[in-house]
Amino acid sequence: MTEPRPDPARQTHLGMRPGELDGKWYAKYWNPVMAPLPEHIKEALSLGPQAPPLCLGLDDARALDEAAYQELENGYSLFDDGSMHVATLTYMPGVSPEMVDWWFWWHATETQRYKLWYPRAHLYAERPGGAGEQSAPYRERYVDGTSFVDEYVGNVPGRLAIRFVRPRSLGFDEGRLDPLKATAVCARVGFSDVPLDWGHLVHYVRRVDGGAEMRSRFWMGGCHVAPRGGASPTGELERVAEGVRNLGDAQARAMVVHCAQEMNHLAVFLPELFDEFPRSGSQ
Amino acid sequence: MTEPRPDPARQTHLGMRPGELDGKWYAKYWNPVMAPLPEHIKEALSLGPQAPPLCLGLDDARALDEAAYQELENGYSLFDDGSMHVATLTYMPGVSPEMVDWWFWWHATETQRYKLWYPRAHLYAERPGGAGEQSAPYRERYVDGTSFVDEYVGNVPGRLAIRFVRPRSLGFDEGRLDPLKATAVCARVGFSDVPLDWGHLVHYVRRVDGGAEMRSRFWMGGCHVAPRGGASPTGELERVAEGVRNLGDAQARAMVVHCAQEMNHLAVFLPELFDEFPRSGSQ
Repeated sequence: MTEPRPDPARQTHLGMRPGELDGKWYAKYWNPVMAPLPEHIKEALSLGPQAPPLCLGLDDARALDEAAYQELENGYSLFDDGSMHVATLTYMPGVSPEMVDWWFWWHATETQRYKLWYPRAHLYAERPGGAGEQSAPYRERYVDGTSFVDEYVGNVPGRLAIRFVRPRSLGFDEGRLDPLKATAVCARVGFSDVPLDWGHLVHYVRRVDGGAEMRSRFWMGGCHVAPRGGASPTGELERVAEGVRNLGDAQARAMVVHCAQEMNHLAVFLPELFDEFPRSGSQ
Repeated sequence: MTEPRPDPARQTHLGMRPGELDGKWYAKYWNPVMAPLPEHIKEALSLGPQAPPLCLGLDDARALDEAAYQELENGYSLFDDGSMHVATLTYMPGVSPEMVDWWFWWHATETQRYKLWYPRAHLYAERPGGAGEQSAPYRERYVDGTSFVDEYVGNVPGRLAIRFVRPRSLGFDEGRLDPLKATAVCARVGFSDVPLDWGHLVHYVRRVDGGAEMRSRFWMGGCHVAPRGGASPTGELERVAEGVRNLGDAQARAMVVHCAQEMNHLAVFLPELFDEFPRSGSQ
């Protein structure tokens, strides 16, 4: 079976051109001025790479479900195998875990929606199979699906396939992920042009006073690089793999900035967008 | 015709030695304690390299003449051809565009004056042909001239030839550059020891409430590297060119810091220096 691919003829551009938001009920949520980086993110960037044992391992991701903070909630580390770990904490006033699940479903079918999230970096979004079952709970509408997204991380463009997986596949007890209290957006990160995965991500979201907090974690490169869906190794695949096996300081810092910027920006408009959605008369 | 070169026997040193300011009417403006980096510059450094399409292209430099801010007013990007773009915004209380034109003329003939600007980085200044026509408007006194300057950018010393060009050569409508309202300091940046240019700069200055704002832009390396004045390629020239064709994160960050530091420091003393100049009895 051939895996789905994004539209090969897509033309992308950064920003929003005149007319692209015409008739979109959510047009007013487009704001190219990003929310500032929180102080705790600037501090983490100043600190540079941290000692690897401070990082949460992928196999222990479910520990995000515990009440306490981990030793590394903000920052990054670089590992001997060439992999990197990135962690960012985002306070989201007025946001609920359910809204985040809704967002991961709603945004993915349309480039303009995706661009709301990160006007200075997001280029393109497509979801094979469309919006999915719209009577299901929000999480069920995106889990097991793939988002094809083109975006810049730092100054480097990427064409990615984000395959959302069940939280339990990373060890979470889904019985504890009542979206009124918590959710965990979990995904395998790969390229969309070639069947190669190169990372994992978790956005664990829980209610706190006045809103929610999102604790984001990325494990990328090194041992996390693998062909997807039984793809056989080719020279092309190996060449792409070589490019993401050894990640360094620049990639890790760009990822900290990227995640912090997009999630803080999302937090600004998500409550109002989510509130307006049922009254919009469309998806 | 041989192009002018700076004094090959020059001895340079950082800082001011006893006696070097004796008899200089402007001695009191020497202050080795730099003004602090503005928050918006620290934020830009934290963000790291931005998506290339956010940058103003050299061919569109005249857009600085429009009322609105550009998408990237502070920060930098790195391009596939090895070039970099740097942008910084400096608020200059009490400064007028005319004072900036005056500064670019006045400082360049004497190392001590040049050092006022950036005590921690500037080493040497010389202008072939001297101070020029002193009854002309300030801009006319430096345009079409070359400043030879030795300076550090970050930890790296450079020996530069800054050739000031007419704003219209970069597309500006000079009719709109009334120095009481706005000016654009435009230059080709090259090396002084070898006939090689490797960048362009614009400092676009306009009046704002309480003073002026300077919007600085640099396009360096990559496609901006070229022999100067019909110089024929030699092994030496090619070796130097190779060193500036591929610029990276370190060079771009150092340039953001350099420009922000010198322009913020200049803003501290320029209004008073300019005001005192006509009463100084010398140039």
